Amino acid sequence: MISDDTVQSIRKFTAERNWEQFHTPANLAKSICIEAAELLECYQWVPEAPASDTEHAQEELADVLTYCIMMADALGVDMDDIITNKLAKTKLKYPSDAVRNNFNEYEARHHSARLRN
Amino acid sequence: MISDDTVQSIRKFTAERNWEQFHTPANLAKSICIEAAELLECYQWVPEAPASDTEHAQEELADVLTYCIMMADALGVDMDDIITNKLAKTKLKYPSDAVRNNFNEYEARHHSARLRN
Amino acid sequence: MISDDTVQSIRKFTAERNWEQFHTPANLAKSICIEAAELLECYQWVPEAPASDTEHAQEELADVLTYCIMMADALGVDMDDIITNKLAKTKLKYPSDAVRNNFNEYEARHHSARLRN
Amino acid sequence: MISDDTVQSIRKFTAERNWEQFHTPANLAKSICIEAAELLECYQWVPEAPASDTEHAQEELADVLTYCIMMADALGVDMDDIITNKLAKTKLKYPSDAVRNNFNEYEARHHSARLRN
Repeated sequence: MISDDTVQSIRKFTAERNWEQFHTPANLAKSICIEAAELLECYQWVPEAPASDTEHAQEELADVLTYCIMMADALGVDMDDIITNKLAKTKLKYPSDAVRNNFNEYEARHHSARLRN
Repeated sequence: MISDDTVQSIRKFTAERNWEQFHTPANLAKSICIEAAELLECYQWVPEAPASDTEHAQEELADVLTYCIMMADALGVDMDDIITNKLAKTKLKYPSDAVRNNFNEYEARHHSARLRN
Repeated sequence: MISDDTVQSIRKFTAERNWEQFHTPANLAKSICIEAAELLECYQWVPEAPASDTEHAQEELADVLTYCIMMADALGVDMDDIITNKLAKTKLKYPSDAVRNNFNEYEARHHSARLRN
Repeated sequence: MISDDTVQSIRKFTAERNWEQFHTPANLAKSICIEAAELLECYQWVPEAPASDTEHAQEELADVLTYCIMMADALGVDMDDIITNKLAKTKLKYPSDAVRNNFNEYEARHHSARLRN
């Protein structure tokens, strides 16, 4: 989970540095992309990150999550709410009976799903 | 915050579809990147997303967070722990006295920081 | 332009290091994403890269292009061909009369375009 | 290769739509990232794109290249020049004798290389 204490500690970090001015949704969207790519870099040439790089992957995931927390604040939304709302839509799109053990059905629904999203 | 209930509902969603088999760290890192870019698309040509697109941005942020929750599970780490650990390192790198209202100092530390990360 | 000489020099670079083994389409797609995000980092907090960072942006763009050249080889396609073919489709999607000075029309066609792509 | 004719046809496409106004380096960097992630999506859950998706991968690569051509124009640089210059630096960083058949040496140089870039 991500506790309220963790969210508060990130808000405090930002406020102490007067960095709210940089945290527009557009800048944070760029930042999430940049950190996501740094996480992907752990797996650039190998299917799994070597054991020595596990801590690196954890830190990059932490960076993505930190910017996501800041983005939720910038958009004025609650993370639990938006995840729960999206999950409800995703469940309708991919009913477990239809896609369980059926990758082709998932793929078909994934691509047709782009029509509505 | 992201509650334990939300994390559990995502685990249940995955288990019901037998999708754990696809959730390797490498596949999830790709997925986080893909969703992060869809979030960025809301801001591709305009500094801020138009009001009519706010719901779209929320859904894309939810997608990034959902894959991050799955990634934390795949790496076997606790989100609060990794965010808190990384925040402690980031505080040392960017002391508030040094970087507050000093973008050049932030930039200098950001680029030299890449040496250690 | 990107000349045949440039393409050949990249192929030679790869062959001399015996790196074709790593250049699967999937690995190169990851690599293009990673370098694209490093290019984006030049513009993370500022609308335009500072003059001192212009060389950095050029190098990151070169990295993206280099991996794209390798990707075209991995897919067995000619860059001129695929760009020309896609441009023909894009022209049909966005006729100049319809979208010239009409950002809303572009946006509408962009989002409906996702249905077909 | 990417011929001068191809570059000219993209410039004409942009000019006819009066879209130069949107093609700032920052907007194009975002666009390259977005298209790179769409290319990556072809390989999201599978190591190689299914045969039926090969045309899709070609089109996404074409999109990345098209935005790269626009970016080179926005930065006022020649693609051959920046690729050649960067390749010269990369050759020094990864001498073929040192890295040929030695992935660990590549990795070590890759991560130390981030210090200088």
